[in-house]
Amino acid sequence: MSTFVKKENSHGCVDTPGFRMAGVHCDIRDKKDNRLDLALIVSERPCTAAGVFTRNKVAAAPVRLDRKVLARGGPFTAIVANSGNANACTGTDGMADAADMQVEVAARLGCSPESVFVCSTGRIGKRLPMTRIKTGIGEAAAILDHSAEAGWNAADAILTSDTRRKVCSVVVETSEGNIHISGMAKGAGMIEPNMATMLAFICTDAEVEGEDLQAALTASTETTFNAVTVDGDESTNDTVLVLANGASGVRMHRGMEEWPAFQAALEAVCGDLARKIVGDGEKITKVVELIIKGAAGAEDAKLAARAVANSLLVKSSWYGNDPNWGRVMDALGYSGADLSEDSVCVWYADYSEAEPVPAFQNGRTFPENLESWRAIVAGKKFRIIADLGRGDASCRVWSTDLTEGYVNFNKSE
Amino acid sequence: MSTFVKKENSHGCVDTPGFRMAGVHCDIRDKKDNRLDLALIVSERPCTAAGVFTRNKVAAAPVRLDRKVLARGGPFTAIVANSGNANACTGTDGMADAADMQVEVAARLGCSPESVFVCSTGRIGKRLPMTRIKTGIGEAAAILDHSAEAGWNAADAILTSDTRRKVCSVVVETSEGNIHISGMAKGAGMIEPNMATMLAFICTDAEVEGEDLQAALTASTETTFNAVTVDGDESTNDTVLVLANGASGVRMHRGMEEWPAFQAALEAVCGDLARKIVGDGEKITKVVELIIKGAAGAEDAKLAARAVANSLLVKSSWYGNDPNWGRVMDALGYSGADLSEDSVCVWYADYSEAEPVPAFQNGRTFPENLESWRAIVAGKKFRIIADLGRGDASCRVWSTDLTEGYVNFNKSE
Repeated sequence: MSTFVKKENSHGCVDTPGFRMAGVHCDIRDKKDNRLDLALIVSERPCTAAGVFTRNKVAAAPVRLDRKVLARGGPFTAIVANSGNANACTGTDGMADAADMQVEVAARLGCSPESVFVCSTGRIGKRLPMTRIKTGIGEAAAILDHSAEAGWNAADAILTSDTRRKVCSVVVETSEGNIHISGMAKGAGMIEPNMATMLAFICTDAEVEGEDLQAALTASTETTFNAVTVDGDESTNDTVLVLANGASGVRMHRGMEEWPAFQAALEAVCGDLARKIVGDGEKITKVVELIIKGAAGAEDAKLAARAVANSLLVKSSWYGNDPNWGRVMDALGYSGADLSEDSVCVWYADYSEAEPVPAFQNGRTFPENLESWRAIVAGKKFRIIADLGRGDASCRVWSTDLTEGYVNFNKSE
Repeated sequence: MSTFVKKENSHGCVDTPGFRMAGVHCDIRDKKDNRLDLALIVSERPCTAAGVFTRNKVAAAPVRLDRKVLARGGPFTAIVANSGNANACTGTDGMADAADMQVEVAARLGCSPESVFVCSTGRIGKRLPMTRIKTGIGEAAAILDHSAEAGWNAADAILTSDTRRKVCSVVVETSEGNIHISGMAKGAGMIEPNMATMLAFICTDAEVEGEDLQAALTASTETTFNAVTVDGDESTNDTVLVLANGASGVRMHRGMEEWPAFQAALEAVCGDLARKIVGDGEKITKVVELIIKGAAGAEDAKLAARAVANSLLVKSSWYGNDPNWGRVMDALGYSGADLSEDSVCVWYADYSEAEPVPAFQNGRTFPENLESWRAIVAGKKFRIIADLGRGDASCRVWSTDLTEGYVNFNKSE
């Protein structure tokens, strides 16, 4: 049975053999601040790919382009991504700009435009500064590298309101040899269970058919990127892309004995990046893991988790270290999930070995536990477990508190 | 055709003949602060009634009790309401406490317990201080009065985080004589389109069958109490009750020529109280009217309005006077309503005679309008109009900005 090991000091996607990258400054924000804002990820060999995109009906131009690129089936060569401008709500001009980015990358790399993915993140409703972007693409293509610095620069170039770089690398040990899976991500606001203002790029040197890769990514996304929320706002640009270049010579496919290990490793990378995104939520002070159990069905479990995770009153009380389980009950009640006051149990828990502390059980309250809840909620990370008492479905979502800092940060752009 | 006239200086429900009331302090919050916290509204004649209640599945004990009282069909005599404690998530003890309030009122008034409605609002998950409440009911019953002071005291006694009293009175001139409709409400947080932490009590001296009164209230609620949002949290206790005592001798019924005027007057009272609720939202600085047009259906219109009205990013940008129409587009996109970037138009408008200023029309942006939007969004009240370009359905919702003050206010209770 194969296993995977997480690399301690990840350099992002360059940790996977056969990928080179660069992050450059082309002043997309027009601030003359030398901030890196354009990333280029290039495979030395043709790749298969998988992608998951925002479900927002106002999808940005690059998202609409990438859906077509992915549907065409490959082979794939590169991802170009810029921060500072989302190229969303930019009409036909925006579609032309995204296509121009593709063409520029293809010209510099000598590949076909249809093998290039394009991603953008940042302000909605403004045209991209295409002259500066094309210059940036040229500069990035000229300095593509395998170095740690190149990996970090690329990971930094996609950040917007993030306060820190988000990278993760694992090595999967298989009977045929080692496989690498490494990724980078951005995201800090507009984070919601159905994707977020987030980009994540994952590179692997496994040899995987596109269809199998897509199945692995779709399954991984459900419990990772689709299970974090900061503010409930789904963005126009959310994109997760996986490129597989086969450089390891190790072939993975669904049905083989070692596939679950590959799937688990991919999910681990997605989960690590997703938790880094929520942990870097705009001006948050804590991360809360919501565990819903006993739901009548999977949809009910999600509804319940999402209502609690996105309640302004619940999130505000977390910020104030107030173990206000009444607001949790209120949110469960309006979530739409099947439940009744008599069927629900709610517990608070920290990450120690200690038993979860009950707050409400089938109509019974526990005022004597107030100090225990207070101690748990005062932590930077804690859990709330709710059993709806209606069935066997469950889900897990990571949310954050809502702070005065968030409102102040987002009151203007 | 009959018309209605709004009374300038409303005294709340005492403006309707045949109703007496009182507001007393019985220290429900255990703060020894003399704050009024128990209201009693009593009709001198038997009443018909109508009610609308929270859809939250974790409904408070008084809501569950009132549903039964209403279903029994009357006649009805009184409403007793307390603030400071919601009697929610209190199990069978809470149900017994609500019933005890009913019995206590009935004993003091010499009426049947089944003719008394009970309402509570405040903190979830704590038993009511029943000894103090019973004393308060006795005191209130002893000082029931028709005076302006009695009307205001009752209206004040149901307030929680509200900063001001909410009352409204109208007189409907009919061919048979005048009818009065007067109301009082509370609500400041947990305000959502599907009701809110809100209570509203409306008294009329029209003679109306319960079924007709219910039809009028249900229709009125849809465009008023169900069209305001502060924070998207639906509460456990939301209740609107109407009592009709027939003291005017004017009989109103569906189908008669003057019924639309009665219906319009009731809707006007509900609308006035609803806008007073949203205008007193916790620590808000502005009220925004969202007008959705061109939706494929009524449900789509509501989805679109609700997504924009409850988006943290949109609400934060209002607070910052930032005309960030990109965030409005983003929220429309994830609302679930049928639309595309090409089909949508968005305008900003103030309440002057000036034409709405376009922000986005079928893929076209208007950067030249930035200063016009800024001027509009800087106001205390403005409108955002969105045409989804898919059909004829529309809706109107009042929302508020999200402020640092809201988060600070709600971080502990």
